[in-house]
Amino acid sequence: MRISARNQIKGKVVEVTKGATTSHVRVDVGGGQVITSSITNEAVDELGLKKGDNVIAVIKASDVMIAVG
Amino acid sequence: MRISARNQIKGKVVEVTKGATTSHVRVDVGGGQVITSSITNEAVDELGLKKGDNVIAVIKASDVMIAVG
Amino acid sequence: MRISARNQIKGKVVEVTKGATTSHVRVDVGGGQVITSSITNEAVDELGLKKGDNVIAVIKASDVMIAVG
Amino acid sequence: MRISARNQIKGKVVEVTKGATTSHVRVDVGGGQVITSSITNEAVDELGLKKGDNVIAVIKASDVMIAVG
Amino acid sequence: MRISARNQIKGKVVEVTKGATTSHVRVDVGGGQVITSSITNEAVDELGLKKGDNVIAVIKASDVMIAVG
Amino acid sequence: MRISARNQIKGKVVEVTKGATTSHVRVDVGGGQVITSSITNEAVDELGLKKGDNVIAVIKASDVMIAVG
Repeated sequence: MRISARNQIKGKVVEVTKGATTSHVRVDVGGGQVITSSITNEAVDELGLKKGDNVIAVIKASDVMIAVG
Repeated sequence: MRISARNQIKGKVVEVTKGATTSHVRVDVGGGQVITSSITNEAVDELGLKKGDNVIAVIKASDVMIAVG
Repeated sequence: MRISARNQIKGKVVEVTKGATTSHVRVDVGGGQVITSSITNEAVDELGLKKGDNVIAVIKASDVMIAVG
Repeated sequence: MRISARNQIKGKVVEVTKGATTSHVRVDVGGGQVITSSITNEAVDELGLKKGDNVIAVIKASDVMIAVG
Repeated sequence: MRISARNQIKGKVVEVTKGATTSHVRVDVGGGQVITSSITNEAVDELGLKKGDNVIAVIKASDVMIAVG
Repeated sequence: MRISARNQIKGKVVEVTKGATTSHVRVDVGGGQVITSSITNEAVDELGLKKGDNVIAVIKASDVMIAVG
């Protein structure tokens, strides 16, 4: 599957924290940068996400803001 | 200003493309990764964004998906 | 590639309208329902999207609201 | 109330799962397709959402991605 | 129609700017605050939006960030 | 830090509700209007958000819909 989302950043899962319905997945994308993703528990289960997995953080361009200063 | 968004990734603007109302700003965040942001022309003007600027790509955790495979 | 997004709806492209930077892609997902997607022109070009293509509309669960009445 | 969101898909609630602050509402929209929505518990309570309710899944066009393959 | 979105702010349209595919609608919500919305041209046409209209700005809670300082 | 998001609305925190992973922060922005934000618990902790704090609700223009009627 190829997807329209402009931002597809490879990394490795460093932490999966499950909540009641929502999980946080933290992905080390290199250069000292960790990206945090908030997704459903069902998605975590379906993809079998766990620490050490190679994954891709996917972000639509319209969800990226720019800050300065 | 500090903001709740979990993902704040430093980089350098490599391209600003203005449309009729919407601009695309491409930011080199290192490691060969370029992040594309879609924001209003007004935001580009107000921040004076141009090639070479040091900026921060800001992304809310709930806007990040995870892909595998 | 498998992605965490809970909603992946198969359909067929019925219209691609390109703007200055942003395109609208309309996808017939059956049952008389057409889904409209707003994505970058670059994404349309990269995926080579055109009328008649079989595609999947992908939507993160946190971007779906519920209305009644 | 009429809303600008381009995607308004009629369906029937098949499951409401409440978490600590966030609920998941699953809506059968026909054709074997179920849409998952992640909304606040407060919204579920205010709309009185429960299994069997006729609802509309509402999605802004800029939150829809396109995948192929 | 009632919708799950937690934020529904009444105001008056002060400006509609149409682009090639995307419009910007600015809404005065009182107290000197103007909210900018980026929606499709189709939505503007369908709702017949124009300066002076009484409207509601609708925002899902998961799309609101908090900043300090 | 200045950010591209078009909507930056000043207010005062009236309630912070922590869930398992996701918090809801309610902000009184004046004129009888309260804005609800859904953010990570980590963001609440990092910003030290509590009732009475002066904050800014930040919303990207592409996340604002318009309703009428």
